[in-house]
Amino acid sequence: MTSALTIAVDAMGGDHGPEVTVAGAALAAERHPFLSFLLVGQQDLIAAVLARHPILQGRAEIIHSDVAVRMDDKPSQALRTGRWKSSMWMALDAVKTGKARVCVSAGNTGALMAMARFCLRTMPGIDRPAIAALWPTLRGESVVLDVGASIGADAGDLVTMAITGAAMARAHFHIERPSIGLLNIGVEEIKGLEAIREAGSMLRAMNAPGFAYAGFIEGDDLGQGKVDVVVTEGFAGNIALKTAEGTAKQIGTFLRQAMGRTWLTKLGFLLARGAFLALRERLDPRNVNGGVFLGLNGIVIKSHGGTDAVGFASALDIGFDMAESDLIGRITQDLTSAPVPTPLAAEAS
Amino acid sequence: MTSALTIAVDAMGGDHGPEVTVAGAALAAERHPFLSFLLVGQQDLIAAVLARHPILQGRAEIIHSDVAVRMDDKPSQALRTGRWKSSMWMALDAVKTGKARVCVSAGNTGALMAMARFCLRTMPGIDRPAIAALWPTLRGESVVLDVGASIGADAGDLVTMAITGAAMARAHFHIERPSIGLLNIGVEEIKGLEAIREAGSMLRAMNAPGFAYAGFIEGDDLGQGKVDVVVTEGFAGNIALKTAEGTAKQIGTFLRQAMGRTWLTKLGFLLARGAFLALRERLDPRNVNGGVFLGLNGIVIKSHGGTDAVGFASALDIGFDMAESDLIGRITQDLTSAPVPTPLAAEAS
Repeated sequence: MTSALTIAVDAMGGDHGPEVTVAGAALAAERHPFLSFLLVGQQDLIAAVLARHPILQGRAEIIHSDVAVRMDDKPSQALRTGRWKSSMWMALDAVKTGKARVCVSAGNTGALMAMARFCLRTMPGIDRPAIAALWPTLRGESVVLDVGASIGADAGDLVTMAITGAAMARAHFHIERPSIGLLNIGVEEIKGLEAIREAGSMLRAMNAPGFAYAGFIEGDDLGQGKVDVVVTEGFAGNIALKTAEGTAKQIGTFLRQAMGRTWLTKLGFLLARGAFLALRERLDPRNVNGGVFLGLNGIVIKSHGGTDAVGFASALDIGFDMAESDLIGRITQDLTSAPVPTPLAAEAS
Repeated sequence: MTSALTIAVDAMGGDHGPEVTVAGAALAAERHPFLSFLLVGQQDLIAAVLARHPILQGRAEIIHSDVAVRMDDKPSQALRTGRWKSSMWMALDAVKTGKARVCVSAGNTGALMAMARFCLRTMPGIDRPAIAALWPTLRGESVVLDVGASIGADAGDLVTMAITGAAMARAHFHIERPSIGLLNIGVEEIKGLEAIREAGSMLRAMNAPGFAYAGFIEGDDLGQGKVDVVVTEGFAGNIALKTAEGTAKQIGTFLRQAMGRTWLTKLGFLLARGAFLALRERLDPRNVNGGVFLGLNGIVIKSHGGTDAVGFASALDIGFDMAESDLIGRITQDLTSAPVPTPLAAEAS
């Protein structure tokens, strides 16, 4: 598809505001000729950065807002001070009113989720939206959700996450029937929480056309890319995501220390520089920047707050991709066509 | 201290039995001249391997058992068939009766924990034992618990884990007042489970002489070694541990792929070989093999089932270290000297 598509950008969100968000839009504009933007925030600040990016000329409209949600605002506080009038809210509202297909913000996660729920509402049959991350694996990428939208999940929550996560994987990886695993721990007898076991039998009973349920996976299967979609409750998912990021950083430091030990290792490093650059590119968190909010009546992407223009452009790319593949339509269809069995029905099957 | 110390080894435990456990004992014997062993299991099998390790002559006694707990036995099954008479039980019993100071097994985790609870009982004031792992960090190592002994933890469980984990850190790192962090997630407003918040205020209120409470940490702080002891509920802890292991493996594969790309990178790899060997050594999971069961009336160490003699020797080293530093005495002292506040008392403080 190459029809025009508009993304609403919370231009004030993140640690660096328009400097990063508008520059990121310019990068994404280069890659997607039919993409245009609503840049929501402080008119003068945005215009100043916009002037430096001629590619956005005629493709970006500024919507003024002089309220910005702060990175340390509590969600309740953000809702109180920022509803209707903040750049974050107005960017979400552009999706609600159909002026844009996607909202992307690098603002604070809790506030964005609270406002998104309030503004866009959850889809019928979904209690709690989840945040899905793209996880780099040996096989490519997996979709992992929930990585921190909410704590705790019952079997029904896990099953709806499987449905929405599968729709995202189909949209993003362009595969027919992505495989789904439930994150669990492998200690015998206490093998996982009741909710996970129950979700497992429900998913098996569904035999859904949109995904293939592959059973439980463990933490070390994440990096191997054993399944296309990993479903987990948000607390464990967030711990897993951050632990993986921390471990990657730690090994990078170890590697740098090791390569600087002697003149021989330094020379080796120089010769193999191409390999290290390729590795760095492969592990660059900016390439997978962009958490997708799943379960809302609209596409919302959360960028890391501290990212740069390259990273923010990745979040815009994901948003573009999700809109172009009609993520919301796919989820709606899956939720209606493959009814979620009740736990009891699954037991009996 | 250099007084004699005996470790009871479940010689039949693990994927390779005496081939690994007895060979591991020989390696540990070289490092600790005053260490001796009770090798519990099939007499003839153990004797055959023992004959190949002269260093163990006069320092290892065989206790015959012809029942071995299988790696896939459920804990209940293992208790039914293996109580009193399996090599696992008899190794634990040697600790109970004072014939040995430590029990080390590479057998199945669930069975070992169930038998250990049954045989040694939990210490007064502790409901559920935890498994503590040594976690390699940028600063050295941290103690992380619970990594999978049980699912779910209330505030009291987390506080007793802090006490037992701190005692282990004092014993292992030889530091006076280790810092303690509670693993949590950083999403605003829903910042963590009630139990974690409550445990945080209890730990702060205790102001214990045995550790310094440092607040919440997140998944990416684990690899940085931000605190000496990380306390978490077992489900999330197991996910974190396995995710870190998986990520390390994944990056290792990426690195090998990158270094094999061109003749230049291959040459660089050859020159920098020393650095890669040092890195591998630093990340070698065998060096930190050995989960310490905390909260029991006796020292029990769980080795990875699939490890080799080098890895099993590490588990023996940790056991030796824990016994020599009087882990059990330290925990008993801490549990009695620094009373755990009730949640209400902590709130009021």
